Amino acid sequence: MHDILIEKKILAENGAIAGANRRAFIERGVYVINMVSSPGAGKTSLIEQMAPLLLEALDAFAVVVGDLEGDLDAVRIAGHGVPVKQITTGRACHLDAHDIAHALQWALDQNTRLLIIENVGNMVCPAEYDLGEDMMVTVLSVAEGDDKPLKYPAIFNTSGALVINKIDLAPYTDFDIGRARRNALAINPVLQIFETSCRTGEGIKEFCAFLAAKALALRREADTNR
Amino acid sequence: MHDILIEKKILAENGAIAGANRRAFIERGVYVINMVSSPGAGKTSLIEQMAPLLLEALDAFAVVVGDLEGDLDAVRIAGHGVPVKQITTGRACHLDAHDIAHALQWALDQNTRLLIIENVGNMVCPAEYDLGEDMMVTVLSVAEGDDKPLKYPAIFNTSGALVINKIDLAPYTDFDIGRARRNALAINPVLQIFETSCRTGEGIKEFCAFLAAKALALRREADTNR
Repeated sequence: MHDILIEKKILAENGAIAGANRRAFIERGVYVINMVSSPGAGKTSLIEQMAPLLLEALDAFAVVVGDLEGDLDAVRIAGHGVPVKQITTGRACHLDAHDIAHALQWALDQNTRLLIIENVGNMVCPAEYDLGEDMMVTVLSVAEGDDKPLKYPAIFNTSGALVINKIDLAPYTDFDIGRARRNALAINPVLQIFETSCRTGEGIKEFCAFLAAKALALRREADTNR
Repeated sequence: MHDILIEKKILAENGAIAGANRRAFIERGVYVINMVSSPGAGKTSLIEQMAPLLLEALDAFAVVVGDLEGDLDAVRIAGHGVPVKQITTGRACHLDAHDIAHALQWALDQNTRLLIIENVGNMVCPAEYDLGEDMMVTVLSVAEGDDKPLKYPAIFNTSGALVINKIDLAPYTDFDIGRARRNALAINPVLQIFETSCRTGEGIKEFCAFLAAKALALRREADTNR
């Protein structure tokens, strides 16, 4: 009971900071996505594939990467000419709104229209920590199995989009894309679902177009309100 | 700072309960493994493959399964004639020693020689929560990438064994088994590493023999001390 009260307090504090982050981003016309997945679902590879398309569509986009240790992912992303900021969480299994508040000024300085936050690989805790994003995006690798929406419902329920990644592996697994879609939509009927492969490039264009349209709509709104 | 003190208190309480669990299991000669991985690395499929071999080698083994919701995994395991107890964690991203204390009497009643605890799919938090096991075992799917030991070092460092699973997928990915081994051993030089595939059955026998030998050695010791 005591633990629950402490947790409620932590989440309330996080929510307040997330709200401030969100207002700052919206005011400056920066669309923010919080990309979450299990470890190794392919978030970094997706961002690498998306980089040239998003740079073309939006002129500028930036990435914040959360990892327990090291900067392997940040180095990979920076290699595509994308401004990237690494947040090292140490033992924390998720980014929180405070981490993003620290990266906020850097992100605004990039004059970006889209900020992709690559969260720590974890299919549970990130669902509870609002970062101030406009949309959470869950990435699910085909290799993880089509039952995952039923086993980790919170993260699918909190997300606006689901990217089913590594579909090139589908023929070598028992993953049934139709069943994965049905399971995901049973948890969250308004989820936008994309199917991608970083090996073949399939579906990357469609997902980028979806994000670019969201970012451009937010920018137009910000310009109108200015 | 306040949060850190709270966390220390929670972990200290968990450690005390884990110690009591461990003493109870050792006294009764039950070898306990805490199986951890990302979601979808194949823990349940491994246990299904292992069931006939472990039942033959040990007469009795039992499983405790932790999941946020549902009992999909427990139903699968029970189908192999293995006693299984489901723990539903709700929003908690890991099992803790208190969960296992609640399952302790059930586990002892099974008169088992080996208890496999299948933890919630999460490569971060379970590393911090001792359950009272004799050995933590990390399962890493080939589809997750060979860099994972460097990105999630705590769990590899806490484990006594690493099972590299889904090796049948290796030809279709960039996963380099040699590099994965080197990365894992750089974090934890005494890690015992196994390579398995639930599709081809490769390596399952070797991993079962390893666990059965541990369990039989503990049982002999318990019998001697009686």
